[in-house]
Amino acid sequence: MSTVVATMSITLDGVGAGHHVTEDEPFGDLPESTFFRWMNETPDENRAAFDAIVGAGAYIMGRHMFGPVTGEWTGDWRGWWGPNPPYHAPVFVLTHHPRESIVMEGGTTFHFVTDGIEAALARAREAAGDRAVHIAGGPSTTNAYLAAGLVDELRLNINPVVAGRGLRLFDGVGPLRLEQIFLKRASLVTHAYYRVLHDE
Amino acid sequence: MSTVVATMSITLDGVGAGHHVTEDEPFGDLPESTFFRWMNETPDENRAAFDAIVGAGAYIMGRHMFGPVTGEWTGDWRGWWGPNPPYHAPVFVLTHHPRESIVMEGGTTFHFVTDGIEAALARAREAAGDRAVHIAGGPSTTNAYLAAGLVDELRLNINPVVAGRGLRLFDGVGPLRLEQIFLKRASLVTHAYYRVLHDE
Repeated sequence: MSTVVATMSITLDGVGAGHHVTEDEPFGDLPESTFFRWMNETPDENRAAFDAIVGAGAYIMGRHMFGPVTGEWTGDWRGWWGPNPPYHAPVFVLTHHPRESIVMEGGTTFHFVTDGIEAALARAREAAGDRAVHIAGGPSTTNAYLAAGLVDELRLNINPVVAGRGLRLFDGVGPLRLEQIFLKRASLVTHAYYRVLHDE
Repeated sequence: MSTVVATMSITLDGVGAGHHVTEDEPFGDLPESTFFRWMNETPDENRAAFDAIVGAGAYIMGRHMFGPVTGEWTGDWRGWWGPNPPYHAPVFVLTHHPRESIVMEGGTTFHFVTDGIEAALARAREAAGDRAVHIAGGPSTTNAYLAAGLVDELRLNINPVVAGRGLRLFDGVGPLRLEQIFLKRASLVTHAYYRVLHDE
């Protein structure tokens, strides 16, 4: 069965996104640089870490990770990533409001799942085959999967910043025991990967 | 002027101590192993990290870091560490209740400071001379110094555990920008040291 990997770029105080996402502010009231300065300014140095975020057989994300639209789907919002998103695989978006799937360029298809995190994971597993399923965020979605014991591996990109506000990874989760499986220091970020131990 | 270094062993969700410290439970409702399994089980591997916690010219700590006694000082509590504490230098304990200084074996003297964090730092700087002043915790004390912009360096020992409750480093602090200056992976912990940037 495919491995379930949660990937997230966070601050040193564990924040993965700001509040109040809008079309102009995908990370809400915190600037994108809080989380992705490393990816934007030092892409060559962090190529492997970027590849560790993408490269899955299927993805799951929360609705705010997909876009700023709330409530019933109106307009034609197709994600933050333009016509050819970096996923190149099925992406299952958690929502309370049904919507037709959207086929994008490059192999990405957005599917909208209204029956909860376990149903989304079942569909993602089926789509991924032997490849990994990535929980792409945001923090609330990742926390829901962590709390349900459904995450095998956690790949954190930790920025040397204290945000002081925003949505926190691990809020409402735990206790959890983990095992560190990878650590790398780059100029603007630390990549720290953990296996979640399920034996307790 | 001496460098001010905050040292703390935390969980992956940023917790540095449990609630409800008692004489039998120095870390409150979280076991000591949550924070110091690395020090107790793998001391040789982590000798340098232990030396980076101690080795200062003077220390500052909060009252719960010194002991479970609250309110007026009663009895003869002399800290958690026995007759010869690992500090071997003056330790300034923040409290609202005056008490005579206590001279311990091995060079440690506990002084009780009732006029706030800046006064404690001034006395610690004077005692430390050219050597560093270490803010030894707990989380509330460290957060007070971080929030006041008085910390130059942060030495974190990050345990691969999500506590899910307890007192959090960085609560009420920030935003802060930092620069990572050291990173080391050990079997049971990650040592991550940061310089706090004061130029913004």
